[in-house]
Amino acid sequence: MIGVDIGGSKLAAGLVDDRLRIIKRLQRSMRGQDTAALLDTVAGAVAELVSTAPREVAAVGFGIPSLIDRRSAASLMAVNLPLKDVRFGALMSERLGLPVFVDNDGNLAALAEHRAGAGVGSDHMVLIGLGSGISSGLILGGELYRGAIGAGAELGHMVIDLNGPPCQGNCPNHGCFESLASGTALAREARAAAAAAPDTALGRALRDGRELDGPLVTELAYDGDRAARGVIELIGVRVGVAIANIVNIFNPQLVVVGGGVMGAGEMLLEPARAELARRALPPLCKLVRVEAAAFAHEAGMVGAAVLALDGLAAREVRL
Amino acid sequence: MIGVDIGGSKLAAGLVDDRLRIIKRLQRSMRGQDTAALLDTVAGAVAELVSTAPREVAAVGFGIPSLIDRRSAASLMAVNLPLKDVRFGALMSERLGLPVFVDNDGNLAALAEHRAGAGVGSDHMVLIGLGSGISSGLILGGELYRGAIGAGAELGHMVIDLNGPPCQGNCPNHGCFESLASGTALAREARAAAAAAPDTALGRALRDGRELDGPLVTELAYDGDRAARGVIELIGVRVGVAIANIVNIFNPQLVVVGGGVMGAGEMLLEPARAELARRALPPLCKLVRVEAAAFAHEAGMVGAAVLALDGLAAREVRL
Repeated sequence: MIGVDIGGSKLAAGLVDDRLRIIKRLQRSMRGQDTAALLDTVAGAVAELVSTAPREVAAVGFGIPSLIDRRSAASLMAVNLPLKDVRFGALMSERLGLPVFVDNDGNLAALAEHRAGAGVGSDHMVLIGLGSGISSGLILGGELYRGAIGAGAELGHMVIDLNGPPCQGNCPNHGCFESLASGTALAREARAAAAAAPDTALGRALRDGRELDGPLVTELAYDGDRAARGVIELIGVRVGVAIANIVNIFNPQLVVVGGGVMGAGEMLLEPARAELARRALPPLCKLVRVEAAAFAHEAGMVGAAVLALDGLAAREVRL
Repeated sequence: MIGVDIGGSKLAAGLVDDRLRIIKRLQRSMRGQDTAALLDTVAGAVAELVSTAPREVAAVGFGIPSLIDRRSAASLMAVNLPLKDVRFGALMSERLGLPVFVDNDGNLAALAEHRAGAGVGSDHMVLIGLGSGISSGLILGGELYRGAIGAGAELGHMVIDLNGPPCQGNCPNHGCFESLASGTALAREARAAAAAAPDTALGRALRDGRELDGPLVTELAYDGDRAARGVIELIGVRVGVAIANIVNIFNPQLVVVGGGVMGAGEMLLEPARAELARRALPPLCKLVRVEAAAFAHEAGMVGAAVLALDGLAAREVRL
């Protein structure tokens, strides 16, 4: 099985066995690519994994950060990629000559965590993935909930600040969770914090012309820099507001937080949990745990492999 | 069947036949009552309907604006009523000597609209009820979704303004949808608008010492008063922000808006739809309709009767 997780700026593909062990990994940047180049990058990455696989690959699962129409496996739009009205499933199936299954990246991360990660045994579970955008997935009553045509669960585009900043990419909204707590928002807040505190490690990094991205801010925060810690905490509080909404809306047993930004781990989750406790309706708050994704940033890739496994199994049953 | 809809400030009870026709109605205020008085009011209202019913009443359904633990039919807490840790189902069943079924009021309004109102045929549907608080219910995949213990779907306590005003009653949150767009919020905004525009009908009503509640503001808005219209429009825009969240999260086919504030009808729904179009992800926005509740402010009462009907039917199947 090959699982491919297509993020807002890069893809991660993995050769995954049927016990969900990752045999081989591969990454590709897609930054700035148009639709055709992006599809080439994706197909090329899969072809490379296929060619080096020790055995025949049975199917490929794709998680893409798009609104998916499940009826046609098409991408209706993506906030952070040029994937508007692209027949993604059909195109990949033609190019690869393999069975192809497609779902939203956040849905698949939720599927992986529910099947074999932090969410085993939690039939009411919400996953949020903090990357360059924010992905999410809903496990409601033990099953993925996808909405009327399969395009739901876009919790990143839930408004948490009426008068907040414009969202990114193709989202027309402003004050969305994504505009305030994604890796992109973290980098924006880091630049502001660095400019305001030039005598901190974060401030010096800005002066030295370094890119203040998630990994650097996280590293400086682990080193104890107060400006970097402040940025992680600010993002954590906003994540806590979104989780309070999730708890009030879904009465879940578990909220799983994954994605690259979760490199910050408990530095981010602690202020998030504190904000959740300040805001959510108390009986619901008492019933929920907030935990890091077990598959960390690889939940989407593993979930894509699970999708392919399940998809093949369903086909076999039909024969 | 008797259906009882307990709102934040009053109850509406109805004798309902098995074709969901309301045979007889009755209202009671519960404003300022403590737990014991409130339970007396509720039981008294039901007893009065029972005593005047032309035939024996088979069961009573209650919709209450509480977090319900479905395992025990208990109210864990209510934002706007003193119903913390009250064994509501057991108490009413003892006092009335009838089979009793209990659910959240918003859930039951959604059930009524889905079964026989605006939501017939829409298996992915979200209802919001704009009253003194904001209730809500989720029909996901044709069924009520209630969360892990049945206490979910509290969309009124979804934050839409991080830095917004404190919510009311027992909600610890601030900037919730309810704090910005409930009937209570409408009255608050009406007082501010009246003070700012003393030469309008709304301003004169304030000077004359009238209570600027939903019905009065709505009446003045229908009469064309610009201050009253502005208040309805402001609330409508905020409702639109919440609906944009609902659309991005659930990919529903239909959002139904009910509750007393919907006396304002299209004056409120038009700005809500416009704000929705400005904010929601376009493919999701194209797929959804926003409509007034068919049962208007009586959806909760009818839904409570449906709950009782369904509950009895399930018991009979078990025998």
